[in-house]
Amino acid sequence: MLELNPLLNKQNGVSIYVQLYQYIKKGIEEGDIPQGSRLPSIRYLSAQLKISKNTVDNAYQQLMAEGYLESRPRIGLTVLPLEQLLLSPFPRENPKESVENETPVRYDFKYGDIDIESFPLQLWKRCLNKALLDEPEQLLQYGPRQGDVGLRTELANYLFQARGVRCSMEQIVICSGTQHALSLILQLLHSDNRSVAMENPGYGGSRSVFRNHGWSIDPISLEHDGMDIERLRESTASVAYITPSHQFPYGMVLPIQKRLSLLEWANHTESFIIEDDYDSEFRYQGRPIPSLKALDTKGNVIYLGTYSKAFLPAARMSYIVLPKRLLEVYHHKCRDYSQSVSPIIQKALYVFMNEGHFTGHIRRMRKVYQKKHHTLIQALNKYMGNRVEIIGQKAGIHLLVKVTNMSTEELVKNAGAAGVKVYGTSSYWMDGKETEPSLVMLGFGGLSEEAIERGVAELYKAWFA
Amino acid sequence: MLELNPLLNKQNGVSIYVQLYQYIKKGIEEGDIPQGSRLPSIRYLSAQLKISKNTVDNAYQQLMAEGYLESRPRIGLTVLPLEQLLLSPFPRENPKESVENETPVRYDFKYGDIDIESFPLQLWKRCLNKALLDEPEQLLQYGPRQGDVGLRTELANYLFQARGVRCSMEQIVICSGTQHALSLILQLLHSDNRSVAMENPGYGGSRSVFRNHGWSIDPISLEHDGMDIERLRESTASVAYITPSHQFPYGMVLPIQKRLSLLEWANHTESFIIEDDYDSEFRYQGRPIPSLKALDTKGNVIYLGTYSKAFLPAARMSYIVLPKRLLEVYHHKCRDYSQSVSPIIQKALYVFMNEGHFTGHIRRMRKVYQKKHHTLIQALNKYMGNRVEIIGQKAGIHLLVKVTNMSTEELVKNAGAAGVKVYGTSSYWMDGKETEPSLVMLGFGGLSEEAIERGVAELYKAWFA
Repeated sequence: MLELNPLLNKQNGVSIYVQLYQYIKKGIEEGDIPQGSRLPSIRYLSAQLKISKNTVDNAYQQLMAEGYLESRPRIGLTVLPLEQLLLSPFPRENPKESVENETPVRYDFKYGDIDIESFPLQLWKRCLNKALLDEPEQLLQYGPRQGDVGLRTELANYLFQARGVRCSMEQIVICSGTQHALSLILQLLHSDNRSVAMENPGYGGSRSVFRNHGWSIDPISLEHDGMDIERLRESTASVAYITPSHQFPYGMVLPIQKRLSLLEWANHTESFIIEDDYDSEFRYQGRPIPSLKALDTKGNVIYLGTYSKAFLPAARMSYIVLPKRLLEVYHHKCRDYSQSVSPIIQKALYVFMNEGHFTGHIRRMRKVYQKKHHTLIQALNKYMGNRVEIIGQKAGIHLLVKVTNMSTEELVKNAGAAGVKVYGTSSYWMDGKETEPSLVMLGFGGLSEEAIERGVAELYKAWFA
Repeated sequence: MLELNPLLNKQNGVSIYVQLYQYIKKGIEEGDIPQGSRLPSIRYLSAQLKISKNTVDNAYQQLMAEGYLESRPRIGLTVLPLEQLLLSPFPRENPKESVENETPVRYDFKYGDIDIESFPLQLWKRCLNKALLDEPEQLLQYGPRQGDVGLRTELANYLFQARGVRCSMEQIVICSGTQHALSLILQLLHSDNRSVAMENPGYGGSRSVFRNHGWSIDPISLEHDGMDIERLRESTASVAYITPSHQFPYGMVLPIQKRLSLLEWANHTESFIIEDDYDSEFRYQGRPIPSLKALDTKGNVIYLGTYSKAFLPAARMSYIVLPKRLLEVYHHKCRDYSQSVSPIIQKALYVFMNEGHFTGHIRRMRKVYQKKHHTLIQALNKYMGNRVEIIGQKAGIHLLVKVTNMSTEELVKNAGAAGVKVYGTSSYWMDGKETEPSLVMLGFGGLSEEAIERGVAELYKAWFA
């Protein structure tokens, strides 16, 4: 029997089973694993590599489906000859998750990862299991179009207490992620003037949705305290999309004067503002910033929130608070739509909130991220001192770092060669045209304090040593 | 302490807790439940009404959130005075799910309900729990953009074996429901000629998506064997949306000649066909009809499937098979998108399929629905004989019934007065203009055979006695 010794890396963002799959596939294609050889059993390989049986099974299943392997009675998993492969009904293609890097990634400063260690996995499993005790009608059918009534009630309460948003649960629509929520909003707003004013730089995942719905984008530059409102006033856009609590990716907070000007602009021009309040829960200095929606007396603000940062990306759940004057449009245009999030996940989150765990969880996570944030800033100061400028350091789960005399490309490449993954910001700039040529993004949510410290030390060596 | 005696109806499609909530709210508003009264405890009311504690709790929570009730120490849930209500931060509005009917619904021939009794709930719970044993990275983060690799691999296998669709898992995108899938497709197809040819009548839930994305709809009438292809050839549409395996709602199967003409049309006009294969698993006569996609050699068919009919609406999961030539567009336009279905649900479904339960489940459900279908046709024949015409009786989980000398409105109203809920088809016709004035839809998936038989007996009395 064959011995497999793949180098598996849990930090580089590629699933372990994809890595294993790719390792075996490459081995077969390059002849290192000859046809007719027997692969180790799932049990054996999982024990040898210290990964779960599920993981090995996933890799094997995929290889079988693509015709690389065959399960033979009394023999086990056998490598098929490559000629036979061409007869397989499934064309071979490389999964898009393929690993291109030569150097294994040891520290991945990826944005959006949450802290897995601190997540109350057992409690969440208990909530899921409690949700599964509900009446079968609740668990098996489509569920209410706007989402679970209990969950929306909890959410309306939370939004009032935490974000100052006054809404009834009838104004809330549960959606499956920010792109889905934004797509739904654009379906309601569909008008002749499909032009949106967006912060530049801003969140690429939202800009793409506007683009893909045929909207033109008017990029509004940032001042030191956020969107340039004078510039917005010159725009002919019918909608403004903005991240006022924590500008993405720069991190500034829109001050009250600009908020009032923004609302005044919407009122005057009869426009809508889409407020994306994606991570306002994590603020480390001063008091929490109330949402823009809290100041909106005319119903011009469409509020967009997500559970991905504050709770769990894997819930794949976001929500819209519709102004009352859009409710009728929603009920008319979306009358045939079904809810998009599984009632099981919604109910589990309802249980989690209803039992009072949600605010406690956020409080705990705020402390966890505050520590990581502190560690990252300390490490940056300690190793790099005034060679770098830190941008946006009061909130959230990422920072920007500006380095003079080096391009973003060089910064990312040199870091990568040292096993540290950092990210450029060009995708956040309109048409990829960044005006800050030496900016990298460091997400710290998913890294331990130790990894942050060591990652920054490696970064220092890669950039300056 | 107050005694509550609401009439709760599990058959009418409104959640029990919404019914209870509405009962109490109405009681308070109309003074039947006076201010200051104490409501029964959750335990007491759940035992009295024989509903779960969760259900009572949900209703109470909602009433508290809206300011009707308050939990007072050592006293319990107390009804607040109505003046105080007006000071509540949450404006009172009637939930859209409100019960308008006077007569309680005893038999609901709703389309889309699955058979809850036959669903393998314990097995599904086991799969969910097994999924929860996976590595935390898999269960807590966003998951791959196109969906779980294992699930897509299983799905590619299934589609090849059951539907003749040859695709690799790289062509599959997991979506959160048909509307979400179609929206994503339209974002890829965005072109100057945003015009779609659709069967008329056809599925309203898809027509709305086209409309809400700014597409114009060219309604193509049906012949006895499906879409009028001659009429399609006159159309200038750039896309055709069709349900070839089981026309919705008429139920005919598109014959091979029309399929080839359709493919030839797409090839000739360089158009795309969106094939919505929503319930092809349930076919009761003859052999299964292979999908249109199975005949598509030029990559002009975009295949759309769902787990809602074949498996579980509450999975809220559908999928697209993209032709290879759209893959690049997808990777470009949706590079910043996240997957929209929770990895937990995806993984549970992967386990269900991977352990081999899926095809067995479909086989079993086919028998269950076949029996119900048989019962419904027998009952219609027995009670109504040639007073009604049955349309589309070879597949699926619904039928159409045509009654002469009565309008759809009368049919629905008279049935309703007798406690039987049946549905008109006007929402499936372009602009609600049905050309068949006396057509009602009978969904039978969610009703027991006994209920079907008794429901039809009541229908007979309501319509003809």
